Amino acid sequence: MYDLLGKLRVVEAASFIASPTAGLYLAQMGAEVIRVDQIGGGPDFKRWPLADNGASFAWEGLNKGKKSVALDLSRPEGRELLVALATAPGDDGGVFLTNFPVGGFLAHEHLVKRRADLITVRIMGQADGRTAFDHTVNSAIGIPNLTGPVGHEGAPVNHVLPAWDLLTGAYSAFALLAAERHRRDTGQGQEVRIPLSDVGIATIANLGQVAEVLHTGVSRQRYGNALYGSFGRDFVTGDGKRLMIMALTTRQWAGLIKTLGIGDAVARIEAAQGVAFATYEGARFDHRDALFALVEAAFATRQAGELCAAFDANGCCWGPYKTTVEAASDPAMVTQNPIFSSIAQPSEMTYPVAGSMATLPQSQRLTPVRAPYLGEHSDEILADVLGLGSGEIGRLHDAGVVASA
Amino acid sequence: MYDLLGKLRVVEAASFIASPTAGLYLAQMGAEVIRVDQIGGGPDFKRWPLADNGASFAWEGLNKGKKSVALDLSRPEGRELLVALATAPGDDGGVFLTNFPVGGFLAHEHLVKRRADLITVRIMGQADGRTAFDHTVNSAIGIPNLTGPVGHEGAPVNHVLPAWDLLTGAYSAFALLAAERHRRDTGQGQEVRIPLSDVGIATIANLGQVAEVLHTGVSRQRYGNALYGSFGRDFVTGDGKRLMIMALTTRQWAGLIKTLGIGDAVARIEAAQGVAFATYEGARFDHRDALFALVEAAFATRQAGELCAAFDANGCCWGPYKTTVEAASDPAMVTQNPIFSSIAQPSEMTYPVAGSMATLPQSQRLTPVRAPYLGEHSDEILADVLGLGSGEIGRLHDAGVVASA
Repeated sequence: MYDLLGKLRVVEAASFIASPTAGLYLAQMGAEVIRVDQIGGGPDFKRWPLADNGASFAWEGLNKGKKSVALDLSRPEGRELLVALATAPGDDGGVFLTNFPVGGFLAHEHLVKRRADLITVRIMGQADGRTAFDHTVNSAIGIPNLTGPVGHEGAPVNHVLPAWDLLTGAYSAFALLAAERHRRDTGQGQEVRIPLSDVGIATIANLGQVAEVLHTGVSRQRYGNALYGSFGRDFVTGDGKRLMIMALTTRQWAGLIKTLGIGDAVARIEAAQGVAFATYEGARFDHRDALFALVEAAFATRQAGELCAAFDANGCCWGPYKTTVEAASDPAMVTQNPIFSSIAQPSEMTYPVAGSMATLPQSQRLTPVRAPYLGEHSDEILADVLGLGSGEIGRLHDAGVVASA
Repeated sequence: MYDLLGKLRVVEAASFIASPTAGLYLAQMGAEVIRVDQIGGGPDFKRWPLADNGASFAWEGLNKGKKSVALDLSRPEGRELLVALATAPGDDGGVFLTNFPVGGFLAHEHLVKRRADLITVRIMGQADGRTAFDHTVNSAIGIPNLTGPVGHEGAPVNHVLPAWDLLTGAYSAFALLAAERHRRDTGQGQEVRIPLSDVGIATIANLGQVAEVLHTGVSRQRYGNALYGSFGRDFVTGDGKRLMIMALTTRQWAGLIKTLGIGDAVARIEAAQGVAFATYEGARFDHRDALFALVEAAFATRQAGELCAAFDANGCCWGPYKTTVEAASDPAMVTQNPIFSSIAQPSEMTYPVAGSMATLPQSQRLTPVRAPYLGEHSDEILADVLGLGSGEIGRLHDAGVVASA
């Protein structure tokens, strides 16, 4: 955590991955993020993976450092409290992050009647209000048809990383700060709608792939593990270690050839084909079959330890293939990585959690704060933000409208 | 494009995907983004896919709406001009976005001598300065081992979407605005370092997957196209259409059962197994084999057209599997999608390009601006930002330090 965002207060009523990551990133940069959930938990409160005590590792990972208010949102009085929190006054408040439906009781047109300069950042499935999740966005833009081993054609391969949720979450945190900067300059708030499906197709277009297929008229074929348009693929060393190798720049290409000692053989291909691999990465892709064979053969004669050291010495880009257990157990990646700190979480486990993904060498990195227990801050927030007295808060508890941890 | 970011001026010296997307998002929210490239283009200037005239669809997709300055960065005089641009005065300037090495001539410790409140957002491979690209980050955290068809174990499957580049880009745009907000409040700039490898492992941790494997001691198995921990997979209709189906919420689950008419069969599984699928999504995953068989059989009796209409009517979450050509040719996704506009690009093609992925109903969406020609704004920027006279600019051209389009 870093304290960059002053006293910025964001009220988050959201579930799943995209919206909570946006709130997480804001909290880790110092914003006060108040997550409001249904009493008993929203639809993401028991998302797998789970701890022995039933707590969700996912939920507690995505909600670290936030405050939690638990309300009965099925009742008008609970809904009114959420609306009051989202639209509470103060220069640093009035920022609302949600994935609730565009037209429901949290519609911006209703909320703005309570606070004219409100900023609502609304993460949606599709722009017309229909549902979409990460995997349905991914299938609809064609990624699964391009993923997976050559020969597996006709059977799409889903991704396992929810890339569209994650990208949407980070982009939403960005868009929220852009809207808040605008409000600081002009006094004007507004709604910012970010549909997952638009993030998906816009990204494919930004990468040039809409232009590509409108130009060629055909979709790319599957290239298996090979990187399209440059040099990249997995190779196996003589002692059975699999490495991902990439050579996108002239320097990386030169380092790869030098490390593997395949300069003469590569030069023969260049002479025969009339190409120069060093200066045009596309040629490395066009002639990948010949190049892959050379690299495979060279890898087979080498041991991973000395090969990786030589790759580093020669400025190559490579990465091991690890299992998740190997990655999580790697001290350099986790326990000795300054972005991680070991803290106790609501799962009743103490384990390394990640703080801000950015490192600010001139600022002090603060220890990550655990996720809240559901409703842990209900009373504090109702008193501090809405100014409710203890009698009124007690009445709300008795009525079952508010719950505490 | 929207005009939220006032006159914020960002100087970008960067290549590949992550950094340029950060600059793109900023430009699409109204910032003036000045991209500085080596004369002739940086290492990403010819990234595939390419147009007939050799222009990169990727480059022109990622650099829309930016200004372009072309300098000879191999020479001290060219480097000095880049440093001068990055550190030029003005309240809305002094924000520098780069993926140049942490210790080179663009080291923050050098730059800050020229402008004390400079913000440098530096996208890195690994935190220690070693190289990493999207695919080597992905392999090192274990995703390829979890991706792909069951039975393909032992052979990792790389993703084809550069998810880590994209997430890093969006997060960097967010972190840049967070640092700039802090500077507005305190007057203090600083360096913000965002290593791809930290984004990768922190994200896996945020999703609960580091805790999961530290707890269980084993990595997840491959689940093919099935969504871990809930109900989701691809199914094929009687007329041969493949759909991605997800049922994460109680409502979506109820809608799926109703649409497919499998309520009785599902109830028998619940009775036999002593579970309630409607209220616990994890049970839908535990008993997925039985449920998948029911859904497969029901799909086989239905035609896609009426089935999808029924899914929509019943609040289900589904998506088609499309090829990239089908997605790019879908009017609802592209030509009739308000985020797209058809404009002429440096590739000499006119095609639909995406503007801001966010939609702001209360703000005017401005037409996307094409990517620049390399060096198109060299003279304008050197005059406006650095105050150079035409004689000096002419001398720099003659010396080969500056080039124009």
